[in-house]
Amino acid sequence: MSNPTAAILIIGDEILSGRTRDINMYHIAGTLSSVGIDLMEARVVSDDKSAIINAVRDLSKQYDNVFTSGGIGPTHDDITADCVAEAFGAHLSVRDDARSLLKAHYESQGKELTEERLRMARIPEGAVLIENPISIAPGFSLENVHVMAGVPRIFAVMVDKLLLRIETGNVMSSETIRVDLPESAISSPLRKIAEDNSELSIGSYPFEENGGYGANIVIRGFDLDAIKTAVQSVRQAFDL
Amino acid sequence: MSNPTAAILIIGDEILSGRTRDINMYHIAGTLSSVGIDLMEARVVSDDKSAIINAVRDLSKQYDNVFTSGGIGPTHDDITADCVAEAFGAHLSVRDDARSLLKAHYESQGKELTEERLRMARIPEGAVLIENPISIAPGFSLENVHVMAGVPRIFAVMVDKLLLRIETGNVMSSETIRVDLPESAISSPLRKIAEDNSELSIGSYPFEENGGYGANIVIRGFDLDAIKTAVQSVRQAFDL
Repeated sequence: MSNPTAAILIIGDEILSGRTRDINMYHIAGTLSSVGIDLMEARVVSDDKSAIINAVRDLSKQYDNVFTSGGIGPTHDDITADCVAEAFGAHLSVRDDARSLLKAHYESQGKELTEERLRMARIPEGAVLIENPISIAPGFSLENVHVMAGVPRIFAVMVDKLLLRIETGNVMSSETIRVDLPESAISSPLRKIAEDNSELSIGSYPFEENGGYGANIVIRGFDLDAIKTAVQSVRQAFDL
Repeated sequence: MSNPTAAILIIGDEILSGRTRDINMYHIAGTLSSVGIDLMEARVVSDDKSAIINAVRDLSKQYDNVFTSGGIGPTHDDITADCVAEAFGAHLSVRDDARSLLKAHYESQGKELTEERLRMARIPEGAVLIENPISIAPGFSLENVHVMAGVPRIFAVMVDKLLLRIETGNVMSSETIRVDLPESAISSPLRKIAEDNSELSIGSYPFEENGGYGANIVIRGFDLDAIKTAVQSVRQAFDL
């Protein structure tokens, strides 16, 4: 049985303008690897209605799960909930369960649940809430799309909460072997090793360090013995 | 006249597995902003033939430029050139101009231009080479798709070389105003300012710091006076 698949959709002008360096994609990539959900694709689109709707429709058709990050706050540029609802033709309105959460939260701080704050209680019909223990305003899952906040610490906690209830898979093991040779000097033996071990994923990731070239050979798979054998083959091929 | 648009396509299992944190997307986002090319979308796909071909076709139809990063080295998992050629139905083979570059480079180092190294001289018919002053193996532009290396320092130099010959645009100016209030306390006045200044892009990027919430209000546009006026409006609205 193969692992569930996933895509991450980052909604963020600030990433595309180069103002902010992404961290949520990097975070979820590591987290999903550790629970056996295969991240197949990542996309960043701008805070634009049709760009978000098209990406949600496209990705949700292709993968078991779509995780989104960003655009669920109370400001005018927060349009993710509207777009995800529209992508599935679901009605979006303030929902009692989300309103109660926000009301209790703001009342405990002596603040009012203003109309603007209430925007964060707008949840599509049929969606399941995703808990946000930090700033309370919930995310939601609609069909196979899981909508979460963009602030990194909140995003990370919402992902953890979500992973308690969605299907996970088998965790791949991996070994990395550093070879201090340019890729052009290792590609021929490595190709043969990859062909001989087609049940494993063998990647070569070149780097440059102190003016010299090298590569990290990453061997991934489910069968620990097969990985061990492939590691031996790589070591032998390059006299390591 | 509007600016040329672009997408970046990162080919990299190592990003999707969480092993490596992306830097090329962040780099090109900043670079394109500084030359007036509007980055509309970023995608990361795995080293998988149909994933790459589909993404190249999809993005090249939608945007003026598609920049790719990764997968043009000599190892078995470097399949970007093959996929880009196939996406456009172009023939791929070792080309004399690329072969000459590599031959001279390896000869100057007393090394042989092996069959594996020659793989890096495979260029689609009709493509224009992109210079690589660091490790010599060239990238290429085929139609509106610009294929570059994944090693960050090499990627950055190839982007610089490429930008000398493709169309650039008008550079947006931007101002950032930090507001130490949660977004829910600023969203109503900010919505009005955004509506009053529809020719500007006004975004709110929440952050969390020392247990408190704030937001960076980013105002972007081409008209410096309009930006100045909007900055004043934001300052007034929040007593800054």
